[in-house]
Amino acid sequence: MSTDLALRARTFRELNERGGLLLPNAWDAASARVFESAGFPAVGTTSAGIAYTRGFRDGQRTGRQMMIDEIANIARALSVPVSADIEAGYGDSPADVTETVLAAVDAGAVGINLEDNTQGGAKPLYAIAAQQERVAAARAAGSRRDIHVTINARTDPFLLGLGAGEEERVQMTLERGRAYIEAGADLVFVPLLVAPDPVRRLSEAFGGRLSLMILPGAPSASTLFAAGARRLSLGQTAMLASLGTVQAVARELLETGTWSAIEKTFFGFGEAEKLFS
Amino acid sequence: MSTDLALRARTFRELNERGGLLLPNAWDAASARVFESAGFPAVGTTSAGIAYTRGFRDGQRTGRQMMIDEIANIARALSVPVSADIEAGYGDSPADVTETVLAAVDAGAVGINLEDNTQGGAKPLYAIAAQQERVAAARAAGSRRDIHVTINARTDPFLLGLGAGEEERVQMTLERGRAYIEAGADLVFVPLLVAPDPVRRLSEAFGGRLSLMILPGAPSASTLFAAGARRLSLGQTAMLASLGTVQAVARELLETGTWSAIEKTFFGFGEAEKLFS
Repeated sequence: MSTDLALRARTFRELNERGGLLLPNAWDAASARVFESAGFPAVGTTSAGIAYTRGFRDGQRTGRQMMIDEIANIARALSVPVSADIEAGYGDSPADVTETVLAAVDAGAVGINLEDNTQGGAKPLYAIAAQQERVAAARAAGSRRDIHVTINARTDPFLLGLGAGEEERVQMTLERGRAYIEAGADLVFVPLLVAPDPVRRLSEAFGGRLSLMILPGAPSASTLFAAGARRLSLGQTAMLASLGTVQAVARELLETGTWSAIEKTFFGFGEAEKLFS
Repeated sequence: MSTDLALRARTFRELNERGGLLLPNAWDAASARVFESAGFPAVGTTSAGIAYTRGFRDGQRTGRQMMIDEIANIARALSVPVSADIEAGYGDSPADVTETVLAAVDAGAVGINLEDNTQGGAKPLYAIAAQQERVAAARAAGSRRDIHVTINARTDPFLLGLGAGEEERVQMTLERGRAYIEAGADLVFVPLLVAPDPVRRLSEAFGGRLSLMILPGAPSASTLFAAGARRLSLGQTAMLASLGTVQAVARELLETGTWSAIEKTFFGFGEAEKLFS
């Protein structure tokens, strides 16, 4: 254990416990440094964004090593704590999760997102008891490196549109979230949930340990924090906004041979060089 | 030699000889696929953009292997021809250039940018005769793989602001560009040159074999093509526009807890997945 890693781990845990945490998700060292230099106290990674940079679709298609390599690349570029999106842990067993969390911590991460989505397995979600073992394995892996790794335990009833309707999804999320907290999760992460009413109910049930992802058209951060979210992350949305900029540049260049789309959000040659020392 | 590589090499050579070539420069597989799917017939890479994604400043700081790995990643994701920015070839000697060009071609590239900037060497530019040997080494390396690698020979009097003024820079560029064409270059690439008058003079001197890079505020593509440019590339400018989008997202999130900057150029979750099959 490096002292620096221990310090980052404590800092990140405190940021999550304090609440009101806005966590941007990076897909390479450049986006990570832009977020850090803008003033964010911590940076997450986005598995979807990283997959796209390597030419893969989302959903564990990069494999463990490629994802860990990019987590290391991002962590190396930053001074602030990094939380790693390790998808479903690149394997079903608790031992797979152990291996992935140890690799993520050794790559410099002090937090993880671990999902219960089987990513194409026989059932859409791991059985609750199995996922509890996987969360416990992540907790134990952090302990083997002498840190409290902040576990953002993702559950996907909303993302996958499971159940007959919102009420059933809320109940599934309640049951799973409580079980994951019991197994050692710090937060329960519910992507695609942004409606204030269910946010309030789930936050109360989880003692405030609720983590959400922003979406185009979602209520503002202050509304979601007021409803009980403790952390708001960006997922792949900032990466997709940057891809939209690339597409606007591409289309304008092909259609009119001009580049006002580049001028509109140009970062500056010298400013970019200054991101890296 | 794969037939596919030979076909891409011929296609790319023809695109460059025909002229009016708009070449966008990618820094990862995602940006590359956005450019390809928008309709560009070929894609270049940007060494500066790739360096930033790995946490380095521009100027050969990634080293040869890291740059080649990313060129391979980009080429794997595309069906259109790829031209690789190999900076100054990662070494001074013709043998260094040979090794780099062979690696770039084996990574899937059928064109290269090779610069005469020594990147911190004793003098700002390689001696003309030395750079001619380096260009010839690049040509020979392509032949060893049975392809005509399209050589965009970059010369940096304008980029480095050498000489007492524009006329002296034009003269230096004239002398060097002619020498590089004589050594086997297909095009002479003059970054930071966008003023139509010197563009006209240099294009005439090079028999039209002039390649330029767009800049914020530069005349439009049609003006630069009319003045005699045969190829216009984006360099790192699209990457910097995407970083500017990331910065706008970051600042808005920190200042107001909202994400209109994400909504403005959002690419779409499903659309992103569809980029990769």
